[in-house]
Amino acid sequence: MNDDIIVAIATSRLEAAISIIRLSGKDCIAFVQEFFTGKILNKASHTITYGYIKDGEQKIDEVLVNIYRGKRTFSGEEMVEINCHGGVYITQKVLNLCLKKGARMAEHGEFSKRAFLNGRIDLSQAEAISDLITAKNDYATELALKGIQGNISHFIEDLREDLIQIITQIEVNIDYPEYEDVEELTADSLLPKSQSLQKKMNHIIESSKNVHLLKDGISTVIIGKPNVGKSSLLNALLNEDKAIVTDIAGTTRDIVEGTIRLDNIILNMIDTAGIRDTDDIVENIGVHKSKELIHKADLVLLVIDGSVPLSKEDEELLELSKDTQRIIVVNKKDQGHNIDIEGISISARDNDIDALIQEIKKRFELGQITAGQEDILANARQIQLLQRASESLDNAIVAMKNQVPTDLIVTDLYDSWENLKEILGERAKEDLLDELFKRFCIGK
Amino acid sequence: MNDDIIVAIATSRLEAAISIIRLSGKDCIAFVQEFFTGKILNKASHTITYGYIKDGEQKIDEVLVNIYRGKRTFSGEEMVEINCHGGVYITQKVLNLCLKKGARMAEHGEFSKRAFLNGRIDLSQAEAISDLITAKNDYATELALKGIQGNISHFIEDLREDLIQIITQIEVNIDYPEYEDVEELTADSLLPKSQSLQKKMNHIIESSKNVHLLKDGISTVIIGKPNVGKSSLLNALLNEDKAIVTDIAGTTRDIVEGTIRLDNIILNMIDTAGIRDTDDIVENIGVHKSKELIHKADLVLLVIDGSVPLSKEDEELLELSKDTQRIIVVNKKDQGHNIDIEGISISARDNDIDALIQEIKKRFELGQITAGQEDILANARQIQLLQRASESLDNAIVAMKNQVPTDLIVTDLYDSWENLKEILGERAKEDLLDELFKRFCIGK
Repeated sequence: MNDDIIVAIATSRLEAAISIIRLSGKDCIAFVQEFFTGKILNKASHTITYGYIKDGEQKIDEVLVNIYRGKRTFSGEEMVEINCHGGVYITQKVLNLCLKKGARMAEHGEFSKRAFLNGRIDLSQAEAISDLITAKNDYATELALKGIQGNISHFIEDLREDLIQIITQIEVNIDYPEYEDVEELTADSLLPKSQSLQKKMNHIIESSKNVHLLKDGISTVIIGKPNVGKSSLLNALLNEDKAIVTDIAGTTRDIVEGTIRLDNIILNMIDTAGIRDTDDIVENIGVHKSKELIHKADLVLLVIDGSVPLSKEDEELLELSKDTQRIIVVNKKDQGHNIDIEGISISARDNDIDALIQEIKKRFELGQITAGQEDILANARQIQLLQRASESLDNAIVAMKNQVPTDLIVTDLYDSWENLKEILGERAKEDLLDELFKRFCIGK
Repeated sequence: MNDDIIVAIATSRLEAAISIIRLSGKDCIAFVQEFFTGKILNKASHTITYGYIKDGEQKIDEVLVNIYRGKRTFSGEEMVEINCHGGVYITQKVLNLCLKKGARMAEHGEFSKRAFLNGRIDLSQAEAISDLITAKNDYATELALKGIQGNISHFIEDLREDLIQIITQIEVNIDYPEYEDVEELTADSLLPKSQSLQKKMNHIIESSKNVHLLKDGISTVIIGKPNVGKSSLLNALLNEDKAIVTDIAGTTRDIVEGTIRLDNIILNMIDTAGIRDTDDIVENIGVHKSKELIHKADLVLLVIDGSVPLSKEDEELLELSKDTQRIIVVNKKDQGHNIDIEGISISARDNDIDALIQEIKKRFELGQITAGQEDILANARQIQLLQRASESLDNAIVAMKNQVPTDLIVTDLYDSWENLKEILGERAKEDLLDELFKRFCIGK
C-alpha cells in the first residue's frame, strides 16, 4: 500500500491568524524533524511542540507542531500538523519547503482516502466528512455528524446481518438438503424474513428521498400574474431569513444569492431576478421555458390575488402548474377575500406568511423529521445502491413465491448483498474512489 | 487586568479541511470542558485530545482540542484551540456555542494584545507578527520573523543601554558635582559618546528607509512617447515574474493586478491599464496629472527608442521626469544604437531586460541587503520614533557643545529615551495600542 509522505495546506488560503500544513505517511515525524528545531522524534503522540521551521540555517517560520503516532490518527498512519502563521506567502513557503524536502503534494481528499484504505472509516463515513464541511444548515450538520460516527454503517450492517441469515439458511439447506423440506422452509421462514427485510430497506429509501432537499435546499420558483405580490412574497421570505450569525459582532452574514434560510429549510430561489425585474416570470421567459422551469423545481409557489375574483390568467397558471409540487398562495388577505379557491392565505406586504412557511415544512415533512430520528442515507449514490439491493431482494422474493430452486434464489440475494457492501465502499472500484475523494478539499 | 475568556475563529472563513477556534483567558480549559467530551481538565499542557463538542445532549462536531497551560502560551494566559471540521456553517456553530456558554467574541488582534499586555512580546514583536501574516515576499517574511524573535527589541535595547550610560554619568555629576570638572567631562566623554550613539541611530534610520519598498513594493510608472515599446517592456517584466508556486500542481498562481515580482522585488505598476490601452500615459491623462503621478512614484521607467535619434517629445519627458527616481531605458537595442544619451540598454521585445532589473536592484540597494544583515526597523511608526530620539539627542549634543548646564541637557536625553521606549510600546498609550491591534486578524 502507498504510504509515501503527502502534504497539503489544510486551512483555506486567505490571510488568517493560523494556517495548518498537514502531513501523513510513514515516518513523517522523522521527516519533519529534519527541518524543525523542536524535538519531536521521541515525543508522545498527540503532543504539541514549539520551534522553528528551518531551511538549512535559514529560519522560515515560528510554529507549533502537532504529532500523531500509530494507527489511531485521522488517516490511520503517522501524521504531523504544522501550525504556521496564517499568511498566504509564509504558509506557501513552509509548504514549498516540505515539497523540497521530498514530501508529495496531496491530491484532493487523499488524507481521507488513506483513512478509508487503512480501514479507519468506511465510505459512508468519508462522505459524511465531506458533507459536514459543505453543510449549510443544522439538519445537514447533524446528519453528517451521525454519518461520521458510523450511523449509516451501523444500519447497513444490520441489513446485511438480516440478509446473511437468510443466505446462510439457504446455503445450509443446499449443502444438507435432507435437513428440511424446501417448500416449508421457504414459506415458513425465508419468505417472511425476506419480506420484512425488504420493508426495512424500502422504509430507509423512502425516508432518505427528501434528504437532498434538507441538505442542499428546495429549488423554489414563484409564479403568478403581474401585481399579485410576487416581489412582496419574496421580500417577506427574505425578511424571515434570520441567518444564525446576524446578531454577533464581528461575524458576517452569509448571503448567498437566491438562497433563503427558514429555520432549517433552505429555499434555493430560481429566477428571482426575473421576478424583481419584470414582475412576470411567464411573460419574461416565455411559456415553454416557464413550464420547464416549473416542472424542474422542487416547489412552485403560485401567487394569486385573493382580494379579487380569479382571472383567466390565474386559471392558465393553475393549469400550467397542476402536476407540480405546488402551493397555491392566496395573497392580499388584508384586502378581503373574494376568491373561490383552496390555498394558503397570506398577506405578503404585512410579512404575514407564517401559514405558508408551515405548509412548506409540512409538504416536505420537515416539521417532524430531525436527523436523529431516522435511519437516513446521505446521498443519491447510497440511495441508488440500496434501491438495487431492494430490487435484487425483490427478485429473490418473487423466485421464492414461484418455488424456484433455492440455489437460484441465492444469486439474487448475493446481488443484494454486494450492493449493500458497496454503500460502505467495500467493493468500491478504484475509479469510483478517485471520483469520490476528488470532491474533497485539499488537506482533507 | 482583563482576562475574561475571549474566542475567535483563527483560520479564514472559507471551506477547508480544518478550522481552528481559539480561546484565551482564565480557566478557559475548564470552560471548554463543560461542552467537550474528551477529558482535558487534568491533561498536561501542549497536548491534543479527541472528542465531541456537545450542546447539552446534542453532538455538534467531532474535534481535536489543543490545550496550553500557564504563562508560556501565545497570549501569556491559559489557551484552548478547538480543531473543527473546516466547514463554514459547522465552524460558526461551534463558535456560537462558545459564545452561548459565555465566552466573549475577541476583537481584532486581541490575542496578540494580551500577549503584549502580559509581557510575552513587546510592540515591535506584535507588529512583526502582523507583518509576517501580510508578508508578500521573502524579504518581508525574513524581516518579520527576525522581528518576532526580538531583533528590533535587541538593538533598540542596545541603544537605550548606551543612552542610559550617558544619562547616568550626567546624573552622577549633578548629584556629586565635586567629583569631576563639568567641561572636561562633556568634552572628553559625554560628547563623543553621544555623537557615536547618534551615528548608530542615524545609520539604522538610513538602512530602514527603503524597508517599505522591500516589504510592500516599489510603485513604478512606465512613461515614454508612443511606440517606444512601453507595452513590450511591461510584458517582458511580467514574463520575469516567476511566482513561487507556478510549478506545483494544485496551487494557484497569485496574480495581483499591477504587481510584478522580480526575485524579491515587488513592482507595483501604476496605470498599466493606461499603457496597454493608449500606449501613451501622458497624452491619456494629461501633462499635469502625469507629472503628479511621476513624482509620487518610487520609480519612473522612461522608455526611449534607441534606434532613432532623440525627438522633441523624448526631451520633454526627460525634462518632466528629471527630479524623480528615474531610470532611462534605451529600448530596441536589437535595432541598432543611434542615440546619444546615457541609459540602460535593453530589447523589451526579446525579453532582454536583465540590465534593467540589475539597475533597479542597485538603485534600491536591494542587491546586497538581506533582512539578516542589518539592524532594520519594520515600519514608519518605528522610524519616526527613532528619528525623534535622534533629534532629541541632537539637541543634547548642541547643548553640550554650547556648554549648557548638564541638568538642562538631561531633559533632551530623557526625551530621546522616551522615544526609544515607545518603539517597544513601553510608553504606548491605550489609544495607540487599540489602533495598532485593530489592524490584526480576528483570532490573532
